[in-house]
Amino acid sequence: MRTESDFVKDPIVIVNFKTYAEVEGEKCLALARICDKVASENGVSIGIAPPLIELSKIASEVEIPVFSQHIDIRKSDPRTGHVTLRSIKAAGCAGTLLNHSERRLILADLEDLISGAKENRLITIVCTNNTGTSRAVAPLEPDYIAMEPPELIGGDISVTTANPGIVRDAVKAVKDISKDVKVLTGAGVKTSADLKKALELGCAGVLLASGVVKAKDPKAALISLCSGITTL
Amino acid sequence: MRTESDFVKDPIVIVNFKTYAEVEGEKCLALARICDKVASENGVSIGIAPPLIELSKIASEVEIPVFSQHIDIRKSDPRTGHVTLRSIKAAGCAGTLLNHSERRLILADLEDLISGAKENRLITIVCTNNTGTSRAVAPLEPDYIAMEPPELIGGDISVTTANPGIVRDAVKAVKDISKDVKVLTGAGVKTSADLKKALELGCAGVLLASGVVKAKDPKAALISLCSGITTL
Amino acid sequence: MRTESDFVKDPIVIVNFKTYAEVEGEKCLALARICDKVASENGVSIGIAPPLIELSKIASEVEIPVFSQHIDIRKSDPRTGHVTLRSIKAAGCAGTLLNHSERRLILADLEDLISGAKENRLITIVCTNNTGTSRAVAPLEPDYIAMEPPELIGGDISVTTANPGIVRDAVKAVKDISKDVKVLTGAGVKTSADLKKALELGCAGVLLASGVVKAKDPKAALISLCSGITTL
Amino acid sequence: MRTESDFVKDPIVIVNFKTYAEVEGEKCLALARICDKVASENGVSIGIAPPLIELSKIASEVEIPVFSQHIDIRKSDPRTGHVTLRSIKAAGCAGTLLNHSERRLILADLEDLISGAKENRLITIVCTNNTGTSRAVAPLEPDYIAMEPPELIGGDISVTTANPGIVRDAVKAVKDISKDVKVLTGAGVKTSADLKKALELGCAGVLLASGVVKAKDPKAALISLCSGITTL
Repeated sequence: MRTESDFVKDPIVIVNFKTYAEVEGEKCLALARICDKVASENGVSIGIAPPLIELSKIASEVEIPVFSQHIDIRKSDPRTGHVTLRSIKAAGCAGTLLNHSERRLILADLEDLISGAKENRLITIVCTNNTGTSRAVAPLEPDYIAMEPPELIGGDISVTTANPGIVRDAVKAVKDISKDVKVLTGAGVKTSADLKKALELGCAGVLLASGVVKAKDPKAALISLCSGITTL
Repeated sequence: MRTESDFVKDPIVIVNFKTYAEVEGEKCLALARICDKVASENGVSIGIAPPLIELSKIASEVEIPVFSQHIDIRKSDPRTGHVTLRSIKAAGCAGTLLNHSERRLILADLEDLISGAKENRLITIVCTNNTGTSRAVAPLEPDYIAMEPPELIGGDISVTTANPGIVRDAVKAVKDISKDVKVLTGAGVKTSADLKKALELGCAGVLLASGVVKAKDPKAALISLCSGITTL
Repeated sequence: MRTESDFVKDPIVIVNFKTYAEVEGEKCLALARICDKVASENGVSIGIAPPLIELSKIASEVEIPVFSQHIDIRKSDPRTGHVTLRSIKAAGCAGTLLNHSERRLILADLEDLISGAKENRLITIVCTNNTGTSRAVAPLEPDYIAMEPPELIGGDISVTTANPGIVRDAVKAVKDISKDVKVLTGAGVKTSADLKKALELGCAGVLLASGVVKAKDPKAALISLCSGITTL
Repeated sequence: MRTESDFVKDPIVIVNFKTYAEVEGEKCLALARICDKVASENGVSIGIAPPLIELSKIASEVEIPVFSQHIDIRKSDPRTGHVTLRSIKAAGCAGTLLNHSERRLILADLEDLISGAKENRLITIVCTNNTGTSRAVAPLEPDYIAMEPPELIGGDISVTTANPGIVRDAVKAVKDISKDVKVLTGAGVKTSADLKKALELGCAGVLLASGVVKAKDPKAALISLCSGITTL
């Protein structure tokens, strides 16, 4: 059985597939395989978060860690149209994003889901929007906090260039509360310079989406992004 | 390419897998295959709605029509943790449940999604809770309206026994507004007598969940339920 | 006791105060009194929907009908931070807006609240965004359906100018289903020409907000809007 | 102008009126006046949170601090059917409850609203459900964290009796992160023994609802509750 420490190494690059047209139907598995290949051929740690409806399929087809984009509840109650923590574990996922800016959670659920993920050995990547919310999530001790200023998401300029101070502040705020919680950053991240800058600022990696998914050549974009780092 | 008329015949039995523990991991495909087999061996029209995370996988593995339990938006926007109409079409789904009692939609979205489903030749099964809401959904002309009194969902007594009048009223209310919209009923449905009664009351079939998914022997339960009807 | 027919006459002008800075604190009552005065001095039927937190106060201070901007539930359950149907009745309100584009409701709640409003003799003004949703609300038989294309709300051009066809279609669609349901329109409505055009298109009045609330001189704006119509 | 330190003293008793039938219409002001009178006559610090629609009216009629039960947004945008931070300030409120178990907030909004409240000198009482969420809210430094186990809310047994350990743990967890944040507790609180026990456990007071609002004699219930403490 795969466990956290088996395949999640830092620095890590998490590719969020979102629900872009570029990952509909067969194209989703194709992109997942590209990420898988780049990871093994280039010795970098890459995780992916495919659309919800592709999750079980992708988790059974690739070697790299697969994350759910969201979960709703911990238990296996009758909850038509929702995603349970237990079901993503059973599908072979490594973990889950939580509280993405496009899918926020109320605090009580966030706390419960992080706690449930720990019990089930699922990795949690909790998205936050600024230093304040990063500081609030830190005591819950997820594996990662991914700080993404919403105004920069999907844009052309990386958060590490537009506002390195906010990244540095978030890293410091989180580490002051818990040394064990690692910080990722995202929003506008596209190049290897963005990634290196994120690492310099104290991050354990990056969370990105359009920079790879909507690239003309996603494989080239991912290889370029990861050039210069080696993690595996 | 599969189209609506190719595989959706009435009377129809829709099995909503919900997010029960009984359909986690490999058990989901196993149950989907049971439904597939019962449909072909017994000549009955069966549709299934697996958990969201299993949707793409199941749609590629069975012959019977596969429905999403829910969709959020029509377009392929960046919407982490949501389900788009276009993506379920691309995954090979026949259609979708909408507005299930465990996943209600606001009216503006419901109207937009039914309209988008028509454009994409996806079958819509819109859940309602009483005669009033069935009457409101009828002018939107989905393919099916599945009327389920919430207080009877997951219970031991079928709506067709507990309250046949409400089923008859809903059928009449819908047909008065649009002859083309077919009515299903659900909540507590388990036996062939329940199904026959639903057809007598003017329904085109039933929507059920625990009666099959949580049965000790789902295959036997489904065969028993469908005994006496032939649709294919 | 005031009842519907005592004070709601058509053509009617409903002023939605929203939560604009212009109606914070004492300014809310001041604007309510302006509306009250214009109604009595000019013999026009005006209703107002103040911010939730001002509702009880305003309802006890003016003669014109006061509407809640929203209600959440029918009953008087413990629901901190919500608005109950019973409480707005007890506060002396004439009725309520429901399903405003800034506060949509799920269909099951909308049906339940319209039904509860009828039982409590509260007037319902249900907002819709197009012909399709207007058609869906019609069978629920609220007192009014206020059709407002969201893309025109808060803008400078009136729906009656920008798209008279959509207003005419909505009126026809609603009347085809129920003759008793009256139609209002809104979005960009500011002038007496806009109001007259709405009446010509078959509406019973208009729903507007910024055209009065954010006007430099709200009293003059309201008098100008209502010039040429007499309802009381 | 009233400021925080002028009228909020500890130990404090916050009475949440919720949306009970007992505070509909004129009964709301009557109960507010009882609370006002008990506070002044008995020298105890009492705050009240009336239903949203009564807020402006009550805030102008009593001397004790009045809290909103909820706010949605900081700014004065057009947000029909919502409550803005600025408007409760303008209405004369002392502050607001946030994140009540019946009205949860997503974390990003909670952080933004606490921050906005500080800028506007509004007191924040943030509700939490356990030690984990209390620990998450502490770094946001609201004035108070009111820890209420949801399963005990509205019940007959006080949290201080049912589970004193959870109260002690929450107090310690909060103080470990920020000494400035005060802790309240609630759920089932009714008697002076419950209140004294809360203070012994390190709380600055209690948050209660049905124990006063639904009491046969609310005045007697409140006097009895407060007997033995003096704060003013």
